[in-house]
Amino acid sequence: MHITPIALGDPPLLNAAGLHAPYVLRTIVELVTDNGLTGLAEVPGSAAVDDVLCAARDTVLGADPLNWHKLKAALGARFAAESSKARGDAPWDQRKIVQLFSAVDVACLDLAGKSFGVPVATLLGGVARDRVPYSAYLFYKYEGAGGDLAFDTDPKATGWAAARQRTAIDPDGIVAQAEAMIKEFGFKSIKLKGGVFEPAQEIAALKALRTAFGPDVPIRYDPNALWTVETSIKWGRELENVLEYFEDPARSQEGMAAVRRAVKLPLATNMCTTSFDDLPGSVRRESEDIILTDHHYWGGLRASMELAAFCRSFGRGVSMHSNNHAGISLAAMTHLGAAMPNLSYALDTHYPWQWEEIIAGGQMKIEDGCVVLPKGPGLGVELDRAAVARAHETYKRCGLKERNDEIEMQKKVPGWKFAATRW
Amino acid sequence: MHITPIALGDPPLLNAAGLHAPYVLRTIVELVTDNGLTGLAEVPGSAAVDDVLCAARDTVLGADPLNWHKLKAALGARFAAESSKARGDAPWDQRKIVQLFSAVDVACLDLAGKSFGVPVATLLGGVARDRVPYSAYLFYKYEGAGGDLAFDTDPKATGWAAARQRTAIDPDGIVAQAEAMIKEFGFKSIKLKGGVFEPAQEIAALKALRTAFGPDVPIRYDPNALWTVETSIKWGRELENVLEYFEDPARSQEGMAAVRRAVKLPLATNMCTTSFDDLPGSVRRESEDIILTDHHYWGGLRASMELAAFCRSFGRGVSMHSNNHAGISLAAMTHLGAAMPNLSYALDTHYPWQWEEIIAGGQMKIEDGCVVLPKGPGLGVELDRAAVARAHETYKRCGLKERNDEIEMQKKVPGWKFAATRW
Repeated sequence: MHITPIALGDPPLLNAAGLHAPYVLRTIVELVTDNGLTGLAEVPGSAAVDDVLCAARDTVLGADPLNWHKLKAALGARFAAESSKARGDAPWDQRKIVQLFSAVDVACLDLAGKSFGVPVATLLGGVARDRVPYSAYLFYKYEGAGGDLAFDTDPKATGWAAARQRTAIDPDGIVAQAEAMIKEFGFKSIKLKGGVFEPAQEIAALKALRTAFGPDVPIRYDPNALWTVETSIKWGRELENVLEYFEDPARSQEGMAAVRRAVKLPLATNMCTTSFDDLPGSVRRESEDIILTDHHYWGGLRASMELAAFCRSFGRGVSMHSNNHAGISLAAMTHLGAAMPNLSYALDTHYPWQWEEIIAGGQMKIEDGCVVLPKGPGLGVELDRAAVARAHETYKRCGLKERNDEIEMQKKVPGWKFAATRW
Repeated sequence: MHITPIALGDPPLLNAAGLHAPYVLRTIVELVTDNGLTGLAEVPGSAAVDDVLCAARDTVLGADPLNWHKLKAALGARFAAESSKARGDAPWDQRKIVQLFSAVDVACLDLAGKSFGVPVATLLGGVARDRVPYSAYLFYKYEGAGGDLAFDTDPKATGWAAARQRTAIDPDGIVAQAEAMIKEFGFKSIKLKGGVFEPAQEIAALKALRTAFGPDVPIRYDPNALWTVETSIKWGRELENVLEYFEDPARSQEGMAAVRRAVKLPLATNMCTTSFDDLPGSVRRESEDIILTDHHYWGGLRASMELAAFCRSFGRGVSMHSNNHAGISLAAMTHLGAAMPNLSYALDTHYPWQWEEIIAGGQMKIEDGCVVLPKGPGLGVELDRAAVARAHETYKRCGLKERNDEIEMQKKVPGWKFAATRW
């Protein structure tokens, strides 16, 4: 069981928690079997999760990768103290146990697929679609390329690589970003990450997107629960004929339910209903219409399929949340999206924002807004060892040990503080 | 795709619907692939289900057995008119679509397991236990062996084979039946099928079982929803210190919820919450504590695993319902029981009541109340072609086309009528 933290370049993207660092951290997990197969997984990077992964080695080593139920039970028992921890107020989930489950589940599925000569999607019940749609994930951002260039730009860049470097802090910047991203990748739907500027400014950007792209391009919007219920209702009503869905306007199932009763828009979440323990509350409170799974945070691909089954029975739509990620995660998301019978909406992905890759062959292609299910067995991706080594060196050099967008933001805006509710 | 109706001998067992015929009908489904593998499944037998299976041939032939999601969607579209049909008032489920799904799901999983060289339980996420516990399923019954002997007995029979022929219509008969069955199979828990005699008589049998076996042998009881809510509450209270769980005392989720509020006993069901569409009502009404899945009626093994996931999130226990069945179904049930992380209770099975088998090697062993997970790939069972041919001849000879316990009962008690609610 090899655990390799890596850092990949990331532009200065703004979000409710502050500002992306010049590097995104990920951790690559490799499970090597006694018959010479290697199973891959990738999880959000942090020293805290790496510590849990390292501590899990004793439980994982010697286990049968084809027997997930037994291994999951052993990991659950070994890390019982982690099971009751909360996801926290950040836009991303803080729980370590689900990331551990996810890493081992995905790597075991990759092993099983390689062992049997079939794609992971087959082991999730089969392929419902072999082209998985993603959405154009727009961000407010500062000028800059990210990575070693940080706030500088590469003047030689062209096309999307040039557009990706540009400032976007107003409606015109967001529309230009959308146009460049859609031109490059062919996305059929748009998501704007909000929670950065005061509501009126972000709603103006959404309306500008609507005007620019027309009613045939669905738009979603996510202020990452930074709004009060009152703000969510007031501005949500403005968005009723603008959005496909409204993601996490307010905090908590109660807050979301209150917004949902008052606003005629489907509400989506990856913040108020984020675990199987949350499902009874979701049903009781009717807190959302759409659950955005994320196999890193729901405990793996099989767990996400269980969530999709819940969504079928309880009238919830289902799609996927994303953090920055590399190709192993994109492959895993694509297998999941391919297998879900009831994938209701195009998936989120940060992938267009990155340019460095650790899988062989470089970045996976997004064409017509879709990723084609990889053909090979398992996840269908292999590591580029030299690229992993470089990304691990970058990890060591950059000195980051966790994602902390508040500290990055303070470098630009001294004294800036994260607020769980801002407007 | 071979569809073979068979009949196996069955003793004159009494239940809410009347009396078992001398033969139980089952249908064997075989899917043969172009690379020479055969996948097996078994479903409750009826001409109506056989017709649907035959009509499904065009959809199944040429499909990829490794791609269940695609095949299920095609079958669902082809038989959309069946999807909204209700299970009916009988103790067993009348829906054809779920039996079609089950037959194809199980046969495809058998094929996948054989193709990959792993047990079906592995394809359901892995083995949580390799010895799956079953309960001693007691029946009120008339004298007789069933099968060609019908109400006659085989005087040469010994042990359980002799005990199985005897009358059991009072507490002493039930206790003697339990003692003989447990001596033979080592069951650690008991279930009495009720709904045959008036409540006082059946409760006396339950109390006699409790006295005979003591508090360490859990007892369940199932009057198959033949009682009113008032009767269920009155007699349920009598059973509070007698039963492990009380199965389907009254009809409907509303009725069960009313009983549940008044009686301090876990309620189990395979009659009020029987499909994924029923789950929201189950949550809203809190109609039961335990859901008894049956892969024949929930649409297959994968669907039953989805139900188990629901049960984990919503605090429901999970175990399994049974009709008469042969070894293919017992193997499938055992793989499912082996894979479910949250199997809460020993499974029901009618298997001890039968003596004819259509799988190679004859009947599977039940020892210490458990069935050991078959070792081979897939379901781990193969057909005994001569036995299948005999059982198919029996099917043709006996003339039965569906299960109708009312008609069988009328042969013994002229004018007897099934009542959905009797006491």
